[in-house]
Amino acid sequence: MTGAWLGLYRGGIAWESDLQFNAHPLCMVIGLIFLQGNALLVYRVFRNEAKRTTKVLHGLLHIFALVIALVGLVAVFDYHRKKGYADLYSLHSWCGILVFVLYFVQWLVGFSFFLFPGASFSLRSRYRPQHIFFGATIFLLSVGTALLGLKEALLFNLGGKYSAFEPEGVLANVLGLLLACFGGAVLYILTRADWKRPSQAEEQALSMDLKTLTEGDSPGSQ
Amino acid sequence: MTGAWLGLYRGGIAWESDLQFNAHPLCMVIGLIFLQGNALLVYRVFRNEAKRTTKVLHGLLHIFALVIALVGLVAVFDYHRKKGYADLYSLHSWCGILVFVLYFVQWLVGFSFFLFPGASFSLRSRYRPQHIFFGATIFLLSVGTALLGLKEALLFNLGGKYSAFEPEGVLANVLGLLLACFGGAVLYILTRADWKRPSQAEEQALSMDLKTLTEGDSPGSQ
Repeated sequence: MTGAWLGLYRGGIAWESDLQFNAHPLCMVIGLIFLQGNALLVYRVFRNEAKRTTKVLHGLLHIFALVIALVGLVAVFDYHRKKGYADLYSLHSWCGILVFVLYFVQWLVGFSFFLFPGASFSLRSRYRPQHIFFGATIFLLSVGTALLGLKEALLFNLGGKYSAFEPEGVLANVLGLLLACFGGAVLYILTRADWKRPSQAEEQALSMDLKTLTEGDSPGSQ
Repeated sequence: MTGAWLGLYRGGIAWESDLQFNAHPLCMVIGLIFLQGNALLVYRVFRNEAKRTTKVLHGLLHIFALVIALVGLVAVFDYHRKKGYADLYSLHSWCGILVFVLYFVQWLVGFSFFLFPGASFSLRSRYRPQHIFFGATIFLLSVGTALLGLKEALLFNLGGKYSAFEPEGVLANVLGLLLACFGGAVLYILTRADWKRPSQAEEQALSMDLKTLTEGDSPGSQ
């Protein structure tokens, strides 16, 4: 829908022209909303798959999200530079930089705790709730920042026509509501207790049962 | 800080003049952000107080929030009517109406489940997680809507001066970041497992122990 908005009302996307700006909203929505949102849900959707596979998928989705968001950031700064526009004056840009820095730090800390083999089990379980909280918060702040940017784009381009219910304004408002609903849906899936991955202890017991079953012993002998 | 912004840069607040508009941001921030946010935290801050008292405080804060938000809504619609401005065309207004309707419905459903004496214990415990999820979501959507409104007010009034780092723009950006941080802080306090109210079973056991202690029996005899 972001693509449709940019294609129908903003002339589409290109790198070497005024259309470079349009790469910004598209990349940010794909990276920091769609991919980041899905990365958050990996542990819920694949809660019965192997931990290692799920972890790698979670990390990969976040790498893609980070790279695509970086392209989106370069697009807007490069566009501003070519046009001679001021940078980082608006609430949207302040929130955006905050999101990007937090996202990058979360990525680094998450990597060193969960993918790097050095961290102990107890350190990981102490950090896990913080990682989940900050992950959800950064994602929600990304959605909020997108809405601010959308609003900015509408007020800059439509001006007074916005209040006359121009088709572009209505489409973009619906897009904004859908982004907010996506944020709400991800938060809902993330917080349901019975959609959570079984805890480590349960998982261990389960894999033991499985082991005894496949090895032909009775579960009681363990 | 909202008051300082309106007082310093927008001429203050009054009902019978162009300053009527300014009642809108102030009432919405006091009602749907400050009071609503604090209402959400009542069960965490007073987790060791009697359930009934906490419940009444939670309900009261939400009544104040609803009434103050209603005044804020009347202010903006009345101002638009007097000025002949269009209503409900922007993403801010769409999100705002969504927030207000959801908040009102949540209030009614919450009241009938938790304050009305008819609802059974099992019905209440099934509804509780939904109430908490929707409460947090409505609150976060309120914060997002406030940021959209702030941005709108800045772009309408400051226009091109916004990009020249006008003091009003910087103050309002900081206000926006603080509102977002408040939202994040409430979410953090709300989601910490060890700040939650002890579960019903623990509470019952506790009150039994207390009863036996005050009545002079040994806890073991219960």
